[in-house]
Amino acid sequence: MITVESARAQLFDLVNTLPSEPAPLMDAAGRVLAEDVAATRDQPPFASSSMDGYAVKSTEVEPHAMFKVIGEAAAGRRFDGQVGPGQAVRIFTGAPIPEGADFVVIQEDVDRRGDLITISDLPGPKSNIRPKGVDFEIGAKITAPRRLSPEDLALLAAMNIPMVPVARKPVVALIATGDELIMPGETPGPDQIIASNTFGIKALLEDVGAHVRVLPIASDTVSSLETAFALAADVDLVVTIGGASVGDYDLVSQVSTALGLERSFYKIRMRPGKPLMAGRLGDSVMVGLPGNPVSAMVCSYLFLAPMIRKMLGLEQVLTPLQSANLTEAIPANGPREHYMRAIVTGDRIKACQNQDSSLLSVLAEANALLVRQPNDPARLAGDEVMFLPI
Amino acid sequence: MITVESARAQLFDLVNTLPSEPAPLMDAAGRVLAEDVAATRDQPPFASSSMDGYAVKSTEVEPHAMFKVIGEAAAGRRFDGQVGPGQAVRIFTGAPIPEGADFVVIQEDVDRRGDLITISDLPGPKSNIRPKGVDFEIGAKITAPRRLSPEDLALLAAMNIPMVPVARKPVVALIATGDELIMPGETPGPDQIIASNTFGIKALLEDVGAHVRVLPIASDTVSSLETAFALAADVDLVVTIGGASVGDYDLVSQVSTALGLERSFYKIRMRPGKPLMAGRLGDSVMVGLPGNPVSAMVCSYLFLAPMIRKMLGLEQVLTPLQSANLTEAIPANGPREHYMRAIVTGDRIKACQNQDSSLLSVLAEANALLVRQPNDPARLAGDEVMFLPI
Repeated sequence: MITVESARAQLFDLVNTLPSEPAPLMDAAGRVLAEDVAATRDQPPFASSSMDGYAVKSTEVEPHAMFKVIGEAAAGRRFDGQVGPGQAVRIFTGAPIPEGADFVVIQEDVDRRGDLITISDLPGPKSNIRPKGVDFEIGAKITAPRRLSPEDLALLAAMNIPMVPVARKPVVALIATGDELIMPGETPGPDQIIASNTFGIKALLEDVGAHVRVLPIASDTVSSLETAFALAADVDLVVTIGGASVGDYDLVSQVSTALGLERSFYKIRMRPGKPLMAGRLGDSVMVGLPGNPVSAMVCSYLFLAPMIRKMLGLEQVLTPLQSANLTEAIPANGPREHYMRAIVTGDRIKACQNQDSSLLSVLAEANALLVRQPNDPARLAGDEVMFLPI
Repeated sequence: MITVESARAQLFDLVNTLPSEPAPLMDAAGRVLAEDVAATRDQPPFASSSMDGYAVKSTEVEPHAMFKVIGEAAAGRRFDGQVGPGQAVRIFTGAPIPEGADFVVIQEDVDRRGDLITISDLPGPKSNIRPKGVDFEIGAKITAPRRLSPEDLALLAAMNIPMVPVARKPVVALIATGDELIMPGETPGPDQIIASNTFGIKALLEDVGAHVRVLPIASDTVSSLETAFALAADVDLVVTIGGASVGDYDLVSQVSTALGLERSFYKIRMRPGKPLMAGRLGDSVMVGLPGNPVSAMVCSYLFLAPMIRKMLGLEQVLTPLQSANLTEAIPANGPREHYMRAIVTGDRIKACQNQDSSLLSVLAEANALLVRQPNDPARLAGDEVMFLPI
């Protein structure tokens, strides 16, 4: 039995950052920037007005000063002439500052009659001019890696970067195994249940940035599993879920070993968990999850999601734990790390009553995994504990 | 001038929950459940073993008791006979409990020789049997509205619900306006800048659950704007961004009014902001955002995202503010509500140095909007302030 931490270290050794590919900016939301990119221009590309008003010479700004309006500058349409003494140019937000002017009097501070304006309220010292390049200058960098936020996309657009180098999405194949499984919408026989893990794990890993293929359910035969592995031959990560009829993984282990799996490890000292299997399989990596629905989802949060983040090249692959205070006491923990289903409200946390690892209804109500260290003593209401948000 | 709160109330009055549509479970991640759904079966559908072991009669479980193994039960393949006195059935996790048995002795607690097992370690009182329906019973409900999490999808699958009633995605048309704008990848003229808002707002609103169409940039002419509005005739929400050459909204306001816009309001007492316009336009709703990149994004977080959540039928349309402690003092606020770009690290927050609303580079570095009430006094390092995570 190995610890969660040691299991993670071994799993991370199996995966590397995937190569980058160019993505159109419009499709790059949530992707991970793979290389630094540099602005191809200054923003603003010229000194520009930050207000609607009148562009004048700052030395002439004084109470009751009068100017003749000789033209207009709008965003996209500059005033081409010079602003001379006693002259002003009507200017709108975003417009280039005309030659000769170095101050914008906001429109609320002037009286206008025909082509003449008079300063009615003395402006403050602010020139209302945005210098060229104040937002960013040509060559300014957005550094990789980072998951591209809406704000990043706006900034990349402003930098005139239409294609963005992003990490290729890890392709994951999910193989649910078991004669007892059917797909939702089918009519179960008396001994059958519905394959549920694939739906949850697909959504979870796609949230993290993977592209997930759900393969047909593999029955508990060598040929069915061989077919499933063949369908997954070109992916980055093959995930089998559950077991075989005779003890978890017997058939999965047998078939994957025959296909050349270099098996990495077997058992993790955690609850919920059961054995986890992993290793290199040809050019890809295989992880065998337990078939128990809650165990499979918890293992996906703890192991698969961080592996996907590593493949995407992110620096922070683990979701930081948070702390909250127990609303009710919890008993001492046994010798295995325990990820208890729990509900966090504000800064308070309550462990769910029934921690049986078959209960999807409890997992769906939970929004956190309360993390217990091995042999953690009993905790009282009010005690601070750590949790992983889910 | 109206408050942010009052502006929100007026905007919410413009939109209603959209009708529901059926979505295949595989595509329902992140969608909003529109109606309660009920389990079509019990889970587990039969009493089942939670461990690998031997199914026996509980009354016979005592130290050194010996049983004859008469068959095997696996997940998907039950044992069809009866377990009589002195008999045991080899059983695996998830398998139906055979008739006559009411206890599973785990395999670690027996010695097996041929077809005979002997209890070597007295089991505890736990039967290792999951009762029929312990996870959920037929008719158990998942209640709407809720945004479907990975765990919800797994639960819906287990309930054998292949199609899920979800709120239709709000369709949003984004119209960037302005002669100064070009798309990324084009070569800007000397007075031009790149349209950036559409990229940021599209990503932001799609994260919330909208489907966003980016329309061609509208130039500052009546006919160009009319064309844009015509392209947006069938959407739920038309969002114009920015202005016209002669003061924000002049042309947008003129054209939309001519098209029948019932205008709701104009100016919000907030920074960054500038005027915001909204109203009903035919069967859809129009919101006119300021063209300033930071203002447009902040208004999208404060107004558009909550409107989308209301259209999706969610109960919580506003993202709850969080609190953190200032690392550096900030000056007193003016008469308008101020959403300062800020960086939160753990429980500490730092307002960005330059709050000019043209600076996308500052917004992209920020991960929070520090919320200042009108006339909020100066705050010292260590003071607790509220923020909206972005």
